[in-house]
Amino acid sequence: MRQSKLFPKTIKIAPKDAVSASHKYLVQAGYVDMLQAGVYTYLPLAWRVIGNINRIVREEMNTEGAQELLMPALQPKGIWEETGRWSGSLSEVMYQFKDASNKDFGLAATHEEVVYDLMRRFINSYKDLPVAVYQIQNKFRAELRAKGGLMRGREFMMKDLYSFHLSAEDLNEYYKKMIEAYKRVYSRCGLEAKVVEASGGVFTDNFSHEFQVVSDAGEDKILYCDGCDWAQNSEITKLKVGDKCPKCGQPLKEGKSIEVGNIFNFGEKYAKDMNGYVNDDKGEKLPILMASYGIGISRLVATIVEKYHDDKGIIWPEAVAPFKVHLISIKKDAEAEKVYNELTLKGIEVLLDDRDVSAGAKFADADLIGLPWRLVVSDKAGVKIEVKKRNESASRLLDLAEVLKEVI
Amino acid sequence: MRQSKLFPKTIKIAPKDAVSASHKYLVQAGYVDMLQAGVYTYLPLAWRVIGNINRIVREEMNTEGAQELLMPALQPKGIWEETGRWSGSLSEVMYQFKDASNKDFGLAATHEEVVYDLMRRFINSYKDLPVAVYQIQNKFRAELRAKGGLMRGREFMMKDLYSFHLSAEDLNEYYKKMIEAYKRVYSRCGLEAKVVEASGGVFTDNFSHEFQVVSDAGEDKILYCDGCDWAQNSEITKLKVGDKCPKCGQPLKEGKSIEVGNIFNFGEKYAKDMNGYVNDDKGEKLPILMASYGIGISRLVATIVEKYHDDKGIIWPEAVAPFKVHLISIKKDAEAEKVYNELTLKGIEVLLDDRDVSAGAKFADADLIGLPWRLVVSDKAGVKIEVKKRNESASRLLDLAEVLKEVI
Repeated sequence: MRQSKLFPKTIKIAPKDAVSASHKYLVQAGYVDMLQAGVYTYLPLAWRVIGNINRIVREEMNTEGAQELLMPALQPKGIWEETGRWSGSLSEVMYQFKDASNKDFGLAATHEEVVYDLMRRFINSYKDLPVAVYQIQNKFRAELRAKGGLMRGREFMMKDLYSFHLSAEDLNEYYKKMIEAYKRVYSRCGLEAKVVEASGGVFTDNFSHEFQVVSDAGEDKILYCDGCDWAQNSEITKLKVGDKCPKCGQPLKEGKSIEVGNIFNFGEKYAKDMNGYVNDDKGEKLPILMASYGIGISRLVATIVEKYHDDKGIIWPEAVAPFKVHLISIKKDAEAEKVYNELTLKGIEVLLDDRDVSAGAKFADADLIGLPWRLVVSDKAGVKIEVKKRNESASRLLDLAEVLKEVI
Repeated sequence: MRQSKLFPKTIKIAPKDAVSASHKYLVQAGYVDMLQAGVYTYLPLAWRVIGNINRIVREEMNTEGAQELLMPALQPKGIWEETGRWSGSLSEVMYQFKDASNKDFGLAATHEEVVYDLMRRFINSYKDLPVAVYQIQNKFRAELRAKGGLMRGREFMMKDLYSFHLSAEDLNEYYKKMIEAYKRVYSRCGLEAKVVEASGGVFTDNFSHEFQVVSDAGEDKILYCDGCDWAQNSEITKLKVGDKCPKCGQPLKEGKSIEVGNIFNFGEKYAKDMNGYVNDDKGEKLPILMASYGIGISRLVATIVEKYHDDKGIIWPEAVAPFKVHLISIKKDAEAEKVYNELTLKGIEVLLDDRDVSAGAKFADADLIGLPWRLVVSDKAGVKIEVKKRNESASRLLDLAEVLKEVI
């Protein structure tokens, strides 16, 4: 794509209320735009990043046999009353309203009730189990703490998956598989997410599991071990910094962290609340068990930026970058065009800076936008191309064939 | 995919209130599920159809240089007051509500105000024009006439594109290009959509343009010519059935039709209402002109079914079918598995009916679900495969190599 056509241009001044690098850079570089507190437009650059993340998420969810669908945001009061959440635990964060005929609606803060209603109507036999479905879409929460940036929004993008089982053993096995699938998702996005034990809520003695990325921009606190994979949310742990890890004995650390996902074993809760039962092969009535698995897609975008940036801008990991290459023409448009065509022909996604602005402005924008490879065509480089990765300080002069070998 | 795993199973009994073939078959075959009137879950089969339609839409929009983004559903009152639509023409169909702090929100019925607010803030120079952006997402309308099926929903999927221009000539040229792009979209989805002149509303003497597919399931009425491409919405035409076509002289016809898209030249309206101006190269202040272009994605799914069905079920055009091939095993599972693997290896999307049900039930489901190709592996077929297109009555016996040649 030609940068002269890219909407919008980068912004000179960072948002005043930006306290985190992700908020600052995602706004300044033209990735997102705030419509109101906690509500953002994903501009074309962010939409490309989200497309890359969603592709990774879909691949990993499909690998575990989950089927994609899309459930509505506009939800009826009735199903939420069955679980007591219409006026209970969720009522404070769920936008609720009436239409002209006085009918009550709730705006999707989550989808457990909707998906369980779907399943209890369609699962007629034990042969229909297990089954897992997922969706990717915007959810809505009346957040009082809606802060700048994508960290905590009133409208935000989620992947939510729900699995349904006949036995606790089968559920637990799928739950473990999903933990591994989640680790693969985060790892492919360039993040190391800790699997953290957290409160299971009021209806189970088991832990739920959160996926947390250690970061000073986080709102959570976790106690964790560097020697092994043990970690607990500080809200529930009975241990403290310096205590011995219960698993490997090393001293425990505490750190701020960003919750990028969570999974929850609801067990029989929804079967009891919403009357979801099915007969097994012996005619015995069994509850349809449910677990849910969420990933905050838009928060993940911000988390990646928190981990990958410097004082000049973003440094995208290749797997999620909006383009792989930033190709900059310094008054050598015809030559740059040739390189652009060669790279594009090889299937490489290139942002060509063909604008009529200074070299300094182009380099500053390239650092801010943060594509993994910067190629410069200029008089200085002559017939060669100046090549630098975003996270390198020194550039090298290569010819086109060498560039192609390195970048592909 | 194996049909034994596909969620959900088909339903024996059609919905009671189904008046149209699309409503009946999309529910019965397990494509969609009604959560409440006018609000549907897109189940895995429908999600695959929508994925195919959206791929076609994106290709054609990208071809015209439009950039994809995603704007919020949760919109602030202020921008809607600027155009008078908060309490005006849109207020009846826009869900409006307050949060706990008494802040007003409107749920996206459309995005003109949001996108124009975005543009007036980011377009700083005439060099930033023209620009076109689009999105695909669910919109919300408090429809009193929310009927069964995907025809008229309270939550429905739209593609909406907005283009911005410095001159009326430039806008008109893009408008014409978009008419051609829309024709390509519908044609690739198997539909012949007429470009119909309709009311331009209160702020222009020009017509707007609707894209209408002639169908008895439609809620609109158009006057059209079979001899040429002339067509007008019956609401605005001054002509009647049998009158001579103003373009070619043939007698005009009238028919019910489904509106699958519309485009609108807003001209200077939004510049005036929302103060969107920019200086040209001579320093003269000019209004940022806007046109909008919508396609009802979920309605398009229903419209395709209205056109492509018989008394047994849906007959999907190949370009949008959820799978290309329905492969049915009649007690020859090992042989069917082999065919499944061969087809899948060639990149063909196959639904393998591996269920332990009667041949009759399998054939009935295949007709209902409506995939373009039906392949049967059975004792009767022997070492051959029984091949039939969904819209053919007679089948042929072919070997695997011949099948591959035909189906790819």
